[in-house]
Amino acid sequence: MSQSTVSEFSQATAVTRQGDHSFTAELDAGWKVAGAVNGGYLLGVAGQALRTVNPNTPDPLVISTFYLGPSREGLVDITTRTLREGRSTASYGIELSQNGAPTISAMATMGNLGELPDDVGTTATPPQLPPPEECVGVAEASEDFKKAAPLIERFDMRLDPATAGFAVGKPSGRGVLQGWIRFVDGTDPDPLSLLTFLDSFPPVMFDLGRFNWAPTMELTAHVRALPAPGWISARLSTRNIAGGMFEEDCELWDSAGRLVAQSRQLARQPRG
Amino acid sequence: MSQSTVSEFSQATAVTRQGDHSFTAELDAGWKVAGAVNGGYLLGVAGQALRTVNPNTPDPLVISTFYLGPSREGLVDITTRTLREGRSTASYGIELSQNGAPTISAMATMGNLGELPDDVGTTATPPQLPPPEECVGVAEASEDFKKAAPLIERFDMRLDPATAGFAVGKPSGRGVLQGWIRFVDGTDPDPLSLLTFLDSFPPVMFDLGRFNWAPTMELTAHVRALPAPGWISARLSTRNIAGGMFEEDCELWDSAGRLVAQSRQLARQPRG
Repeated sequence: MSQSTVSEFSQATAVTRQGDHSFTAELDAGWKVAGAVNGGYLLGVAGQALRTVNPNTPDPLVISTFYLGPSREGLVDITTRTLREGRSTASYGIELSQNGAPTISAMATMGNLGELPDDVGTTATPPQLPPPEECVGVAEASEDFKKAAPLIERFDMRLDPATAGFAVGKPSGRGVLQGWIRFVDGTDPDPLSLLTFLDSFPPVMFDLGRFNWAPTMELTAHVRALPAPGWISARLSTRNIAGGMFEEDCELWDSAGRLVAQSRQLARQPRG
Repeated sequence: MSQSTVSEFSQATAVTRQGDHSFTAELDAGWKVAGAVNGGYLLGVAGQALRTVNPNTPDPLVISTFYLGPSREGLVDITTRTLREGRSTASYGIELSQNGAPTISAMATMGNLGELPDDVGTTATPPQLPPPEECVGVAEASEDFKKAAPLIERFDMRLDPATAGFAVGKPSGRGVLQGWIRFVDGTDPDPLSLLTFLDSFPPVMFDLGRFNWAPTMELTAHVRALPAPGWISARLSTRNIAGGMFEEDCELWDSAGRLVAQSRQLARQPRG
């Protein structure tokens, strides 16, 4: 698809300004999974509002989000408040609500990724996984699965066969998922789409044979660089499953081999 | 010291209720480092206020904090707001300000760690480090250092010799620090003190030979279990130093070998 067309993601995350610190948006049913709108998509919507509040700081550097209740398709009210506006970064609070009930409360420090110094001292290494054409396409999922998770049709998502055993009833038990992701309409990644990618893969608990929905309590995302065009590779892992909760880490690497985003979430364990 | 004495930590983090959602506290000069009050200590103060708001949910499960400006010793005003109160967990926003200027904005989900299910499926492993008596006592630091960082006199803190090379001008360059921590007055750890411990060690950048102050932009902490009495061991690491910022992860393990708290912060790189 030509890049001049408005991307599916831009369209679905568009916000309408209602006042200095208030917006509305229409949550799109195409980004649902297990009956609720996906949390990563909601981060994209929040990011659009924050970008509009202050065009000098268009990029989320860090955003921390508390999920207070499930989000439904349709109208959402968004309010922002200024915590601190500096020369190169600015921090805001942002709340999403539907029918008067809060669904998301978040805080973010925004900045301009294109203006950061270009030092890179990363000791982290990118996920080792086969090229996309040798991975398992999530688009090959059953029609029933797609109906329950229309979200997966927004992406071209490929899972490393070594961590995709859950799809054929053979989870590895290691608590790791790896794969590739890009938008199905060919749009290249930008900082806001990284927020969405961080929470779009199947839950890492699938690799432990636990398939029910795992509601996110809180997710913090760092976006560290503008992503190069092309595929994003991802590594999800969990190390501490205890007390009815688990943490899930996600790293996103761009096609130039740069660690562009990191997240950690605390979620409730699936009941199954 | 007998446990019946009020601990230094309890005293220094005490809050005075001023209204349903407002408190004051006196920030104690003994918890300063590099001219400002330590961010981990401030989390303890915030935790005390949140615990007072709702005694049914005394423990922080997850708290995400944005540091908006340095905190000074003396009076701090604290306001909280309810985001969602449920049966077993409750989420709040909390703001600290001094002389009318916001210094900290945070959100937390509180719960009751003693009532969580007792499943533990951790694949993480505790830090491998010598016993405390074979580690480097931070109390052996120079008088000048102690004067600049009275904070370190609140703890009995011992660093793994393998990661304490920075103290003698030989940082390992790996971006890892390990050590032991407990309160110097003998008080055993509780969930609020874990918040403080998470941000009390020397910055992990010291192990990379970069010794200037590294201001935290945002820190998210998960507290996952009530800590057993005794020493807490800690592992701090950074993997992604880029664009003038770095992330620092900290894990705290209790004397029973349980991973009791995890944090990740995004900080600005020291200028030095």
